[in-house]
Amino acid sequence: MRPSGRAPDEMREITITPNFTRHAEGSVLIGFGDTRVLVTASVEERVPPFLRGKGEGWVTAEYGMLPRATHTRGQREAAKGKQSGRTQEIQRLIGRSLRAVTDMKLLGERQITLDCDVLQADGGTRTAAISGAWVALRLAVNKLMAEGAITVDPITTQVAAVSCGIYQGTPVLDLDYPEDSSADADANFVLLANGNIAEAQATAEGATYDEEGLLRLLRLARIGCGRIFDAQLKAVA
Amino acid sequence: MRPSGRAPDEMREITITPNFTRHAEGSVLIGFGDTRVLVTASVEERVPPFLRGKGEGWVTAEYGMLPRATHTRGQREAAKGKQSGRTQEIQRLIGRSLRAVTDMKLLGERQITLDCDVLQADGGTRTAAISGAWVALRLAVNKLMAEGAITVDPITTQVAAVSCGIYQGTPVLDLDYPEDSSADADANFVLLANGNIAEAQATAEGATYDEEGLLRLLRLARIGCGRIFDAQLKAVA
Amino acid sequence: MRPSGRAPDEMREITITPNFTRHAEGSVLIGFGDTRVLVTASVEERVPPFLRGKGEGWVTAEYGMLPRATHTRGQREAAKGKQSGRTQEIQRLIGRSLRAVTDMKLLGERQITLDCDVLQADGGTRTAAISGAWVALRLAVNKLMAEGAITVDPITTQVAAVSCGIYQGTPVLDLDYPEDSSADADANFVLLANGNIAEAQATAEGATYDEEGLLRLLRLARIGCGRIFDAQLKAVA
Amino acid sequence: MRPSGRAPDEMREITITPNFTRHAEGSVLIGFGDTRVLVTASVEERVPPFLRGKGEGWVTAEYGMLPRATHTRGQREAAKGKQSGRTQEIQRLIGRSLRAVTDMKLLGERQITLDCDVLQADGGTRTAAISGAWVALRLAVNKLMAEGAITVDPITTQVAAVSCGIYQGTPVLDLDYPEDSSADADANFVLLANGNIAEAQATAEGATYDEEGLLRLLRLARIGCGRIFDAQLKAVA
Amino acid sequence: MRPSGRAPDEMREITITPNFTRHAEGSVLIGFGDTRVLVTASVEERVPPFLRGKGEGWVTAEYGMLPRATHTRGQREAAKGKQSGRTQEIQRLIGRSLRAVTDMKLLGERQITLDCDVLQADGGTRTAAISGAWVALRLAVNKLMAEGAITVDPITTQVAAVSCGIYQGTPVLDLDYPEDSSADADANFVLLANGNIAEAQATAEGATYDEEGLLRLLRLARIGCGRIFDAQLKAVA
Amino acid sequence: MRPSGRAPDEMREITITPNFTRHAEGSVLIGFGDTRVLVTASVEERVPPFLRGKGEGWVTAEYGMLPRATHTRGQREAAKGKQSGRTQEIQRLIGRSLRAVTDMKLLGERQITLDCDVLQADGGTRTAAISGAWVALRLAVNKLMAEGAITVDPITTQVAAVSCGIYQGTPVLDLDYPEDSSADADANFVLLANGNIAEAQATAEGATYDEEGLLRLLRLARIGCGRIFDAQLKAVA
Repeated sequence: MRPSGRAPDEMREITITPNFTRHAEGSVLIGFGDTRVLVTASVEERVPPFLRGKGEGWVTAEYGMLPRATHTRGQREAAKGKQSGRTQEIQRLIGRSLRAVTDMKLLGERQITLDCDVLQADGGTRTAAISGAWVALRLAVNKLMAEGAITVDPITTQVAAVSCGIYQGTPVLDLDYPEDSSADADANFVLLANGNIAEAQATAEGATYDEEGLLRLLRLARIGCGRIFDAQLKAVA
Repeated sequence: MRPSGRAPDEMREITITPNFTRHAEGSVLIGFGDTRVLVTASVEERVPPFLRGKGEGWVTAEYGMLPRATHTRGQREAAKGKQSGRTQEIQRLIGRSLRAVTDMKLLGERQITLDCDVLQADGGTRTAAISGAWVALRLAVNKLMAEGAITVDPITTQVAAVSCGIYQGTPVLDLDYPEDSSADADANFVLLANGNIAEAQATAEGATYDEEGLLRLLRLARIGCGRIFDAQLKAVA
Repeated sequence: MRPSGRAPDEMREITITPNFTRHAEGSVLIGFGDTRVLVTASVEERVPPFLRGKGEGWVTAEYGMLPRATHTRGQREAAKGKQSGRTQEIQRLIGRSLRAVTDMKLLGERQITLDCDVLQADGGTRTAAISGAWVALRLAVNKLMAEGAITVDPITTQVAAVSCGIYQGTPVLDLDYPEDSSADADANFVLLANGNIAEAQATAEGATYDEEGLLRLLRLARIGCGRIFDAQLKAVA
Repeated sequence: MRPSGRAPDEMREITITPNFTRHAEGSVLIGFGDTRVLVTASVEERVPPFLRGKGEGWVTAEYGMLPRATHTRGQREAAKGKQSGRTQEIQRLIGRSLRAVTDMKLLGERQITLDCDVLQADGGTRTAAISGAWVALRLAVNKLMAEGAITVDPITTQVAAVSCGIYQGTPVLDLDYPEDSSADADANFVLLANGNIAEAQATAEGATYDEEGLLRLLRLARIGCGRIFDAQLKAVA
Repeated sequence: MRPSGRAPDEMREITITPNFTRHAEGSVLIGFGDTRVLVTASVEERVPPFLRGKGEGWVTAEYGMLPRATHTRGQREAAKGKQSGRTQEIQRLIGRSLRAVTDMKLLGERQITLDCDVLQADGGTRTAAISGAWVALRLAVNKLMAEGAITVDPITTQVAAVSCGIYQGTPVLDLDYPEDSSADADANFVLLANGNIAEAQATAEGATYDEEGLLRLLRLARIGCGRIFDAQLKAVA
Repeated sequence: MRPSGRAPDEMREITITPNFTRHAEGSVLIGFGDTRVLVTASVEERVPPFLRGKGEGWVTAEYGMLPRATHTRGQREAAKGKQSGRTQEIQRLIGRSLRAVTDMKLLGERQITLDCDVLQADGGTRTAAISGAWVALRLAVNKLMAEGAITVDPITTQVAAVSCGIYQGTPVLDLDYPEDSSADADANFVLLANGNIAEAQATAEGATYDEEGLLRLLRLARIGCGRIFDAQLKAVA
């Protein structure tokens, strides 16, 4: 049995508050249960050096966790003077995931930065960040289209992410912190609304798994992402 | 006339949401108008090296601003690898202000860290941070007292802060961003509920001021802090 | 057709030179075609702070690429003053992979660090590093056992890794640089000799894939890792 | 009674040696008692990016303390790899103070950097630095005017700074180290020769003060700065 | 007697493997006994800012040591975030030595970077690096001349380096690690094939020496460099 | 002819002001002509980790240059966040030089740090620093002996340093900046009062030299150091 009493294929409550802050072109507070991530999308009329003059845009992400988002206070990365390997790994994943649903030629020579800041953590911060980032990106692109800066929609489909894992021998969906910290295996799937997989990462540090286990986790992820796709659409409606 | 239509001695709406996040011993979301700062108080049963074995506690603060809290996106300090001079100046000010109302002997050999993270900025982030930090500290100390870890209250009085400035020749209270960015002089006062001043900082980069001007700004600050003291009490009631 | 003329399920030549350097407890130069990684295993009789006094060991990894391992010279990370996100991501993966085949209690309170330095890069540096790291770890543990420091073998099975990808629509095994730089999807699998999967990472930045595609890549990885397991055994015989 | 035997409103001896070093456009060694600060003014024919092409100049400052300027050796900031919050706070204050007396349009598109290095510290290093920086700036501008690079004097008036504090219940002027380290309140005032205040900073970490106390400190500061203005004029005569 | 049984004026075996890696314009693995340094020469069609537009080239060097090149593992400089003073001193020496035999006008406006990475250390890594760097530079320049990018050879003569020292009272040539770690004095000479000295560095931390001693060490260095010059010529033949 | 009109074997005026600052155990302002270096010796009752519990002391040095010690302003190393290779090379040389005249057993388990800060530079800053550091060390050790902390003098002899070079074909002593910036070869010698050499460093970046040239420079250095030894003795008398 799961500590939360959830069924193995049951997501936590998904809450999406669009326009949570006012300066960003797109902004959202997303919650997967007690996990809360504030995502903003910032549009800048410039691209990284390697893209200059090519007529293409770029989507990138940064990730951070407030020092006391967690059970015990972690050191502030700005004070330490560097981002941890975990932070860099997550922000690279978020960026790749959103680029998988963006047509860079249609976006035009501009950059959208998705800042994902975890206000409260209870497992699944990276998957909540990706799922929320799509909403922030959608809002920012809507604004660009409303202003006439973009005429054809560069977003090709929805993207969402969810974690799955093997907890006490059972594959479960959307791990919370108590599950995450003692799971035998732990996977994150980034799925597209058109049925494709953008990214699959499955890790076993103590235990291991096989093809069958991988597919079972993926099946749970499809259920979870289905729920997230619905919530995303409601939020941007 | 002020851009917001406020009277010269009129504060923006003060909103204080206690227990905004759940892991920290004390937590609050404070708003001065559109400025929103999340403050958490983290209790740790250790003190900095210079205090070890002296039977005294310590109160310190860290400050950060989310990259898109502002009109245009600022670079993330964790990515740059260092905190700006402004950030360090502000977090030193917050720490001093809260230490001014804490009896370190009564607190005992433990440290309370106040993390002040600006989710949205519209002027006055440091004064909102100080004012919210008192609430977070109060909540954390209440918890320590309820648990019996502390028996006599180490918090001696309330502390609050507000900005004032000379805008188009008129002294005004609680500057918002449009006022702040074009004010002739700009001051921050940290006041105690017992009538004393903990900190006064008044700067004139272009214009200057004299004793008379300084006192007029201080009078406005007393009005503003009175309003904040009331809101703090309601929040912790 | 693959640029190298290889069949889709054909690995490049695997070369493993054990004891390539003399100071380390274990040392190996591993080649996947033109990719060359020098891996050393260093035994230290201490563990990270979080493990002290628990009677358990630790296995960790660091990764680096010589500035001119690649077609054009890259900046030296020591001169830049920080390791890239890519470097950190890779060294975390190597560490997890080797920990998946080590019984930390049997290893005892000591740490083994696997330094993986790429002398020449032609795609697949992280998978060559993992595959070579097992050999270096095996040699170092053999030495500890010969000295009587360890009595029961803490290495539970072999671990190897290989990349796969979809190149011009066809799933292929062990991508070299020309394939890697234009693949539609790109995956790394870390497999154990007992049939289990330690880690699966599949990414699609432009194109995407589905369950079927994921399984096809995994099937190729099983072929490739089989070849590597044989070469590892020969090297440590 | 003050440890030095001075009267409450008595400054320490002010010593100003202009042209202490020879390469800088302006250079001065200033002493407030045993506090010794070397200030150089360096003229560069470029401005920071945010001012380029606007026809305006900039005045900025950097501050440092030699490791053994103090009673016990402090770590060298260049060796630590970063400037402390205190250093940054002070150099920002020095820069603002000098900009308060400079007309940037008249200065023209050039930057003057004031390097303030403390050779020996005995309290009041930041106020000595500001007071000396005015002399170095004056000398550098005189040189620019003598060369014909500037025709109308961009320096509008003199600026000086002094510390005051409440020591054992009595407001005193120009704190030396023994007073500074045990004062109940501690203030720094930056005053202009035209009677205006450029900056007021009053802090109470243990004790606090009120309007009356603030004004009393300010009155002392006016006495002290009067003395400094005279010494500045003699030095540049 | 020397620990290795060598005569006082006997070099260790010199091994030079040209073209050890394939991407660099010049590449060599050089060995002085058990010391192994991989040197690559990278040609870039740009020069440092201070040389732009002057029609001259530049030769520079970087040096690194793999963490387990030594008897006990050293911390990775990229992980520490900075290069040690020793590393910087060595790479400056290598750069100067190679510039001593290069005509920058004939090289033309391009930069050649010599990356010297120690795979295995047994004393004399800096002298092996310099001696190998000449081979890598020679190969890279040969390539530029074969391509017609350079018409007149910019390399004026050969350069080689060797260490000498006073070991147990006797001047000896080419110190290995056991000698180096207990030598009374320790010198490095960089000599040119035309008989001139490019660099002499002789240090005595405990013992000291006089003119006679310095000349005796230099005589040994001439013998050693003669041997290296021969090996260099064979390697590039 | 030398730009200064000096004879080839003529030193600049040597000025040594002992006790230039008051907090350090030893302090001196040394001048070689217009070069001015402030050296302080700080005694601390602790040694670096590698010496703990061995009953031996340590002597080390740090070097810095004020930003405007030179003709044009250099960037402050504390602001850049790292010390240059040149700085590190020089401070390592100063430390070795002073250790060459200190008996670490007699010094006892304490560390003396020599901070050498260049107030004004005109060539020869490292040699002036070494020569002045001996005076500061002597004063600090005298103080320790006067206090009875040390009974037998740990300083074995005097150490001094001077630069020499080949300027327009002529070997000259004690190069000033105009000579240094255009010399054909450039050497620094660290000599002991007992006639021995502690360190010899001779570099030729454009031109080169031979044994004869090296000895001629050394002969000049002996003349120069003789002058410095006299000045040191007068200063500490």
